[in-house]
Amino acid sequence: MSEYRAPVRDIKFVLDHIVDLASLADIPDFSHVDPDTVSGLVDEAARFMAEVVAPTNRIGDSVGSQRNADGSVSTPEGFKKAYEQYVSSGWNAVKSDPAYGGHGFPASVGIAVQEMLTASNMAFSLCPMLTMSAILALENHGYEEQKATYLPKLISGEWTGTMVLTEPEAGSDVGALRAKAEPADDGTWRIFGTKIYITWGEHDMADNIVHLVLARAPGAPPGTKGISLFIVPKFLVNADGSLGERNDVTCVSIEHKVGIHGSPTCVLAFGEGDGAVGYLIGEVNQGMRCMFTMMNDARLHVGLEGLGIAERSFQQAAEYARVRTQGRAIGTPPTESSPIVEHPDVRRMLMTMKASTEALRALLYDNAKAIDLAHRHPDEAVRTANSGRAGLLTPVAKAWGTDLGVELTSLGIQIHGGMGYVEETGAAQHWRDSRIAPIYEGTNGIQAIDLVMRKLPMDGGAVVHGYLDEMAALERELAEATADLGTLHTELAEGIELLRNATEWLLSREDPNDVLSGATPYLRLFGTVAGGYYLAREALAARRLLAGNGDDPFLAAKIATARFYCEQLLPQAFGLVPAITANAGSLFAVDAAMLGT
Amino acid sequence: MSEYRAPVRDIKFVLDHIVDLASLADIPDFSHVDPDTVSGLVDEAARFMAEVVAPTNRIGDSVGSQRNADGSVSTPEGFKKAYEQYVSSGWNAVKSDPAYGGHGFPASVGIAVQEMLTASNMAFSLCPMLTMSAILALENHGYEEQKATYLPKLISGEWTGTMVLTEPEAGSDVGALRAKAEPADDGTWRIFGTKIYITWGEHDMADNIVHLVLARAPGAPPGTKGISLFIVPKFLVNADGSLGERNDVTCVSIEHKVGIHGSPTCVLAFGEGDGAVGYLIGEVNQGMRCMFTMMNDARLHVGLEGLGIAERSFQQAAEYARVRTQGRAIGTPPTESSPIVEHPDVRRMLMTMKASTEALRALLYDNAKAIDLAHRHPDEAVRTANSGRAGLLTPVAKAWGTDLGVELTSLGIQIHGGMGYVEETGAAQHWRDSRIAPIYEGTNGIQAIDLVMRKLPMDGGAVVHGYLDEMAALERELAEATADLGTLHTELAEGIELLRNATEWLLSREDPNDVLSGATPYLRLFGTVAGGYYLAREALAARRLLAGNGDDPFLAAKIATARFYCEQLLPQAFGLVPAITANAGSLFAVDAAMLGT
Repeated sequence: MSEYRAPVRDIKFVLDHIVDLASLADIPDFSHVDPDTVSGLVDEAARFMAEVVAPTNRIGDSVGSQRNADGSVSTPEGFKKAYEQYVSSGWNAVKSDPAYGGHGFPASVGIAVQEMLTASNMAFSLCPMLTMSAILALENHGYEEQKATYLPKLISGEWTGTMVLTEPEAGSDVGALRAKAEPADDGTWRIFGTKIYITWGEHDMADNIVHLVLARAPGAPPGTKGISLFIVPKFLVNADGSLGERNDVTCVSIEHKVGIHGSPTCVLAFGEGDGAVGYLIGEVNQGMRCMFTMMNDARLHVGLEGLGIAERSFQQAAEYARVRTQGRAIGTPPTESSPIVEHPDVRRMLMTMKASTEALRALLYDNAKAIDLAHRHPDEAVRTANSGRAGLLTPVAKAWGTDLGVELTSLGIQIHGGMGYVEETGAAQHWRDSRIAPIYEGTNGIQAIDLVMRKLPMDGGAVVHGYLDEMAALERELAEATADLGTLHTELAEGIELLRNATEWLLSREDPNDVLSGATPYLRLFGTVAGGYYLAREALAARRLLAGNGDDPFLAAKIATARFYCEQLLPQAFGLVPAITANAGSLFAVDAAMLGT
Repeated sequence: MSEYRAPVRDIKFVLDHIVDLASLADIPDFSHVDPDTVSGLVDEAARFMAEVVAPTNRIGDSVGSQRNADGSVSTPEGFKKAYEQYVSSGWNAVKSDPAYGGHGFPASVGIAVQEMLTASNMAFSLCPMLTMSAILALENHGYEEQKATYLPKLISGEWTGTMVLTEPEAGSDVGALRAKAEPADDGTWRIFGTKIYITWGEHDMADNIVHLVLARAPGAPPGTKGISLFIVPKFLVNADGSLGERNDVTCVSIEHKVGIHGSPTCVLAFGEGDGAVGYLIGEVNQGMRCMFTMMNDARLHVGLEGLGIAERSFQQAAEYARVRTQGRAIGTPPTESSPIVEHPDVRRMLMTMKASTEALRALLYDNAKAIDLAHRHPDEAVRTANSGRAGLLTPVAKAWGTDLGVELTSLGIQIHGGMGYVEETGAAQHWRDSRIAPIYEGTNGIQAIDLVMRKLPMDGGAVVHGYLDEMAALERELAEATADLGTLHTELAEGIELLRNATEWLLSREDPNDVLSGATPYLRLFGTVAGGYYLAREALAARRLLAGNGDDPFLAAKIATARFYCEQLLPQAFGLVPAITANAGSLFAVDAAMLGT
């Protein structure tokens, strides 16, 4: 009913023409990454995810992970076996450090594997995603002994990781957390406190779970400056690497959620007994800095959830629309009925899904490329520039990507008509699953604040100006291609100009409330225009290939899709400008007490 | 956790200033409808719905209606009792014919009661909604004997009604249905066939269920011209009005849906034995005409579901935003944390919810007023004009209203952060419940087709031109009020102009595929601009009242809300114009086979 076929050719097209994989091979760390190897890797991942992971998606939703009376958590049938195969096939290690058993592929290759994993089973994919966050924290901030103890098992996936931040009174405001860490005589710590919303906080797929926990040491200053980060393994690890005692951390309950039922979202109690044994990562009170290291990666991955699930929803809807007949399209003989894909309104929904997912894929992969260059390029100037670029794009990737995820999966339901509202069809699961992504890993409102308050002002605005200039530089090539690309370049140029003006407006405001008030519509404008830019680049690449290559419907579709996006979707964002530049006054003109009855 | 407080003052404000109730009292049929009576009715309905119906909403979702092994359906605890009280208090009869026990209130008063019922428990409200459709069909097309037999019980609500149209191969394309009707010797008919998606097709809240079933008589022409409408009661009715034999109709299964779990969506089998006894309504092959009679009413009601559920979601989110503290708004001392309602991004979401629901309420109630005038005004010219107006507004009310329902309830989740994704909070139920409304009673794509293909061309375009002129006529009064209303009238005037141009473009096209391709974005533009028009009228009314009335935060909020809508939300629709006028070519430029992988 809901098969997944990885969009292999689309993915490779983005790797070739947006990421430009060949250029990454110049970086010493990636000298082993030749395009043929990557192509084979993508093919193999596509096969594995579709055959092994994707079939677990429906049962994951209908049964869900369940907490047992003893505090253990059982995953749905098939999860454990799929995870074993995922680990034994090496998929968890794709982009990690070879020194600890990783395969050392760039993030911009890892993202292709992650996309396919996420599309196959979003709930399942969260477990490796959190493990990846733990790996990054340890790689960047762990002591050598900690790395040696935990990284090989986390990179292989034999052990999984969690990020343990949230408390009932500390969600978006991490600085409000109250979990306590007390130093023990032996240099370890004892952790006490209740944490909520811990994704894959307890489960039966791995031998051990490595919790990375934020807590306050004695005398810590208030707010984010007084937070430290600790390793708290579910089972303590003996000196020889074998598993020892069960640590003092228990799963008290799991949440009853709208979607991602396969992913256990846990309330974890630390230190109900003598205290959970914890090991400090980095320095005391430096926990937030450690968290920030992995945030770009995690947020990009959450944006990827929007893409993966929208792609799967799109595939299912397109297949349904080709098979389901109902009514007659204009010109169909009275005795026949038409596949609904021939009705303009259904076609509009499908084209919107196709164009938006492709725009989003390019943005996300380009974001991953910036992360690669920021971390691995030998030239410091390139590293610095791309660190800024990655920082700029990440909140857009996260928020625009996840908003699109919800909107596009909703179209996926709509195309199914009444069938879409019946759970067995599976179209609704995508929509329900997608709805968490605008919330976690920093709500989309937080992303918008991050974009306008921290990212735009970076380097005096130079980072965003560099990106705007890069977009505008496409103008000349586009103008030469009007015979094939229609008015695409006109709409795109207008979009870039509006985005530039809105950016200048935000950068010039003195009252931060005015900037904050325009943040969300600005992020939407940014994502929408950037999407047009990437699709235009793909259209130009397709045009070049077509010139020497006769007719290829895939390449022709790339051009037509870019045109549809720029001519029909991109202009919708232009109407956001008044909301961006309206100032705070109009948002606060109605008294809070008058909101609601 | 999820209380409902009916927005009584908002409702009365719309009844006073948009519907202009006082003017309806000039119509002989409504001579008994004085504003004081209506005001008391609204107050009493508000109390009843909040106290009796609203508390059943959560259990309706978490338990749902269940089919038993014998084919009966049990509703969730509390539904039966609430329905008994609903019937005994007379709420079902508000707008029905006094000749059969109704109270004869206008549709524009009935809609206020329906809004509050729907907001209290959407799944529950569908049962009376379907009964109302059956009542309308019988009032307009039933024989006297049929009216006498069924109307009193349906109007009181002691019996409920259903609309039985859909079959697996006949959804949007009703004309494809295959259920058979065979004449019996005694003038009755025998019905055979399986029907799906029958809302409240079987349940335990009423003594009898009156199914109105579409089927084909022998020799009927294909398509919609060969469909007849039959009464098929669950229990046959004896000559003395008492209930007789069980008819040959059984509930085979109920659907497992994304939301509205309290509402049993049934697969009904007719004629598994000797045939279900049916009674023809009107003439053979005139079934579609009978259906069209009630369609305006049913579609308006479905649009109202978007409003009711968005209003409830808004109330809950606003309340949460006032009490939940997290982070610090600009200017808050470091030792304090702010209620999230003080954060601009949260305020933007709440203002979007407030402004959109108020715009929608005004449009829907004005639509109901047009229905009243179309049916009851003594002057035929007024009836004709308002029949056109109601026809024009109905697809907009249905599709724009239900799209907003999904979008606004999604904001309601977002405001709750992580709590919004946990089912116990209740915010997610609204979103899941709302998702059916863009699908049933004619998908929103069908509504858009209806608008551009049937409604715009009515009377050579005179109906839509009349509405556009009415909107534009507000210009002068708005221009005089700029001191209080800011740039509201500028944006509204631009919106009306764009809508007018888009309308002319659609009316002038020769290729129907071009018109169909622009249908959905056009409907969105229409709704968005109309919403601005109604809020502007409300702002002008508030301004007049304020002039003689000092400061009243309710009235001040009306003005601020209209400004927010016109200055910040309305312009978003302007970007839809390119998609409306793009022609079909760009939608079909990508081959259907290239959609999806």
